[in-house]
Amino acid sequence: MPSGSKPSIDRRNFVRGIALAGLAAEAKGDDTPVQASSKPQDVTRRLAQYVVASKPEDVPHPVNKEAARTLLNWVGCAVGGSRHETVDIAIGALAPFAGPAQATILGRKERMDVLNAALVNGIASHIFDYDDTHLRTVIHPAGPVASAILALSEYRPVSGRDFVHALVLGVEVECRIGNAVYPAHYDAGWHITGTTGVFGSAAAVGKLLGLTDQQMTWALGIAATQPVGLKEMFGTMTKSFHPGRAAQNGLTAAMLASRNFTSSNQALEAKSGWANVLSTSRDYAEITKMLGQTYEISLNTYKPYACGVVIHPAIDGCIQLRNQFNLTANQIERIDLHVHPLVLELTGKKTPQSGLEGKFSVYYAAAIAIVEGAAGEKQFSDALVHDPVIVALRDRVTATVDPSIGEAQVKIAITLKDGRRLEKTVEQVIGSVENPLSDAALDVKFLDLASGVLPVAQSRKLLDLCWNVEKLTGAAEIAKAAALT
Amino acid sequence: MPSGSKPSIDRRNFVRGIALAGLAAEAKGDDTPVQASSKPQDVTRRLAQYVVASKPEDVPHPVNKEAARTLLNWVGCAVGGSRHETVDIAIGALAPFAGPAQATILGRKERMDVLNAALVNGIASHIFDYDDTHLRTVIHPAGPVASAILALSEYRPVSGRDFVHALVLGVEVECRIGNAVYPAHYDAGWHITGTTGVFGSAAAVGKLLGLTDQQMTWALGIAATQPVGLKEMFGTMTKSFHPGRAAQNGLTAAMLASRNFTSSNQALEAKSGWANVLSTSRDYAEITKMLGQTYEISLNTYKPYACGVVIHPAIDGCIQLRNQFNLTANQIERIDLHVHPLVLELTGKKTPQSGLEGKFSVYYAAAIAIVEGAAGEKQFSDALVHDPVIVALRDRVTATVDPSIGEAQVKIAITLKDGRRLEKTVEQVIGSVENPLSDAALDVKFLDLASGVLPVAQSRKLLDLCWNVEKLTGAAEIAKAAALT
Repeated sequence: MPSGSKPSIDRRNFVRGIALAGLAAEAKGDDTPVQASSKPQDVTRRLAQYVVASKPEDVPHPVNKEAARTLLNWVGCAVGGSRHETVDIAIGALAPFAGPAQATILGRKERMDVLNAALVNGIASHIFDYDDTHLRTVIHPAGPVASAILALSEYRPVSGRDFVHALVLGVEVECRIGNAVYPAHYDAGWHITGTTGVFGSAAAVGKLLGLTDQQMTWALGIAATQPVGLKEMFGTMTKSFHPGRAAQNGLTAAMLASRNFTSSNQALEAKSGWANVLSTSRDYAEITKMLGQTYEISLNTYKPYACGVVIHPAIDGCIQLRNQFNLTANQIERIDLHVHPLVLELTGKKTPQSGLEGKFSVYYAAAIAIVEGAAGEKQFSDALVHDPVIVALRDRVTATVDPSIGEAQVKIAITLKDGRRLEKTVEQVIGSVENPLSDAALDVKFLDLASGVLPVAQSRKLLDLCWNVEKLTGAAEIAKAAALT
Repeated sequence: MPSGSKPSIDRRNFVRGIALAGLAAEAKGDDTPVQASSKPQDVTRRLAQYVVASKPEDVPHPVNKEAARTLLNWVGCAVGGSRHETVDIAIGALAPFAGPAQATILGRKERMDVLNAALVNGIASHIFDYDDTHLRTVIHPAGPVASAILALSEYRPVSGRDFVHALVLGVEVECRIGNAVYPAHYDAGWHITGTTGVFGSAAAVGKLLGLTDQQMTWALGIAATQPVGLKEMFGTMTKSFHPGRAAQNGLTAAMLASRNFTSSNQALEAKSGWANVLSTSRDYAEITKMLGQTYEISLNTYKPYACGVVIHPAIDGCIQLRNQFNLTANQIERIDLHVHPLVLELTGKKTPQSGLEGKFSVYYAAAIAIVEGAAGEKQFSDALVHDPVIVALRDRVTATVDPSIGEAQVKIAITLKDGRRLEKTVEQVIGSVENPLSDAALDVKFLDLASGVLPVAQSRKLLDLCWNVEKLTGAAEIAKAAALT
């Protein structure tokens, strides 16, 4: 499913955030950084003040843990996408104008200046549409923020702890602004990842630069005037450009503000400000309520499979059966799926001929789930689509529409050649807020993405650094470990 | 008057453009580059095809003459603004990340890469709000376009003729798109110079890079997804950032498209395209009708005085009387002005104490018009505001509101100490489409702006190069002549 989709997310999903609020309040005592009595026109200033005042120790441990998961998922996507033609073209076009070799292009040998590295890594991380998703707003939060601060950390030393804190705050800023205008803003035609991402990047970079309240307010202003991304670009290379350019624009905004380049003090809420100009409706309370008490990054999700979410339940169930019964393809007589109507509408290709077509075939997806036990980018290769074992199994898969099956569900029956019949019902697909991807599954996804780009030992070291980011003396170590040498 | 104002422009102003249409048709014969039968959804493609197909010899001489006037006015503004703090900050913040010293920062010693030079020169050119204005849309057309192609010409040789052609086409593209959405788009809160400027820059640069139809269409798409500028930024340094960033974004778009970075083919007209997302109304015919037969640059205007247009008539009339009668301050008993009501509402300061306050005093403006014979940036200095001769004359100026006086008009009576009474009525202020600034007045404005930045001989040489831009082997000569050595 493209990121253009709008999953209906139950407000109860906020439960995780609210639960964390207790922890946060406990950790912070009575120290509330923003006055509840601030006037509505202070939205931009209040958000800026919150970011400036927040301290690493204010953030509860589970939030930082989710930040590490967000980071490693993003690094995996950026490394995995780094060999794509889109990245080759961007580097080729911009290298003649780029500055000193300050920062790593993940998964490659090239180094570029901080601003261009942020752009290119942001592009790479979105190419497979496999990055993280804040389901309530369909924002892909990491792209704009992590791309900016990881590149910055190679230019200006940033501790792992401060890096995680900046990542949490950047995601907080972009997702809160997104919450305030979603869905009207998205429905109007904006690619919300790029239009809110500029704020996330500016806030996170501004935090690391130690901006004052006034400078942070200006940074948000300079970001507001550079929104990136029309939905019309979906399906082209320009879609991946959006998170990268948002990272770069936010970085630029924070750098200018740090030298007192002036801007509006009401960039979000003014009559000609961002929220009025870019959205037909807005709820500023979403930006300011319970600041420092809930964390949007706690609601971040990670795709387990490198294809549209509509066939994720079938893959999920097949992998579970495979692992439970140690299944191999030649044991299997037939696989019968009962699926939601959208599955055949969107992914009903019987005989896909390329890796990309494979993403639109529930038959192929079920087959690779059994044979490979995974459905990462590697499993959607042109070679595997023509593999005789997989093709033969694919042709023994049937799919029947069942209106009683939900979008996140599937019913699977596998008939073995020895006559046994194995059944599995998936009620809540893996990768949702309710059934999040496990740490182990994130490891598998990461290593799958990095495979073929970085040597295995280097990939494992990089993964380990991401998990331990909070303990690193310098976050730049992660970037350096992701470089092709 | 800030560029936020919306002068009511009579559609008859198009007369100049229509008159040129005859010349153009004559020059082109039956060779119409775009089919009249093209479907509405082809707006972006048709505009791209027109830019690609246009040849320098298609453009009538008076259009190229206006392009030279547009260029020299822009160069003057960029040189004049180059010492401003806004430019210092932008260079300071971005230099650590900038690429090779490929292009000149006009009026300064620094050189930066093409993309950053376009940004900084675009910023400098808008600082005094003294740049050119396409009155129908209040777009400042030169900033985004000239900043981009002049920087490019130092990296990749561009003949003077091709430079002028690209400038004409870039202005055509941005102003036609502006015509299609003005005033709804501007009223919604967008700073139209930055939001349409990205297209102008992309088209002009794309023309010089020799893009194909497909690549030019993509360049417009990559530009569309990077609009710059909220009106909320007016009154801050971020306002000047807009034309500069538009130049840089358009350059980036064209560079990416030249390497086949894909984008939408319907970036302007698609449901989630630029015109639908950024404006509540739109008229696509403004973009495609009579392409190649009228030229928007013919409607470009240049401010004669470095202050709000509301007091331009008073300055205009006083300078005319001064020159006609060789007036000096000590000959004058009193000056009586009859003015439009807005004049005292906006510029009624009796005793301005700074150069900036001087811009809001019709009394001061009339005095400097007599003493200096000019009202450029230099005349609004803190020193002149306290000059005893000017202060004494300023205090002998009266202004009376007369509702029968139009916004572009003034009635002046100067009583001399010898008893003579000199009268002047200005019906149509200088600097409008109907009463354009003369070439000689543009010279004066240019030299005033360059004075104190570049040595006089260098300024004169630079001015001469601008007038003769069409004959230059390389347009880069202009940039090089504008560098501080």
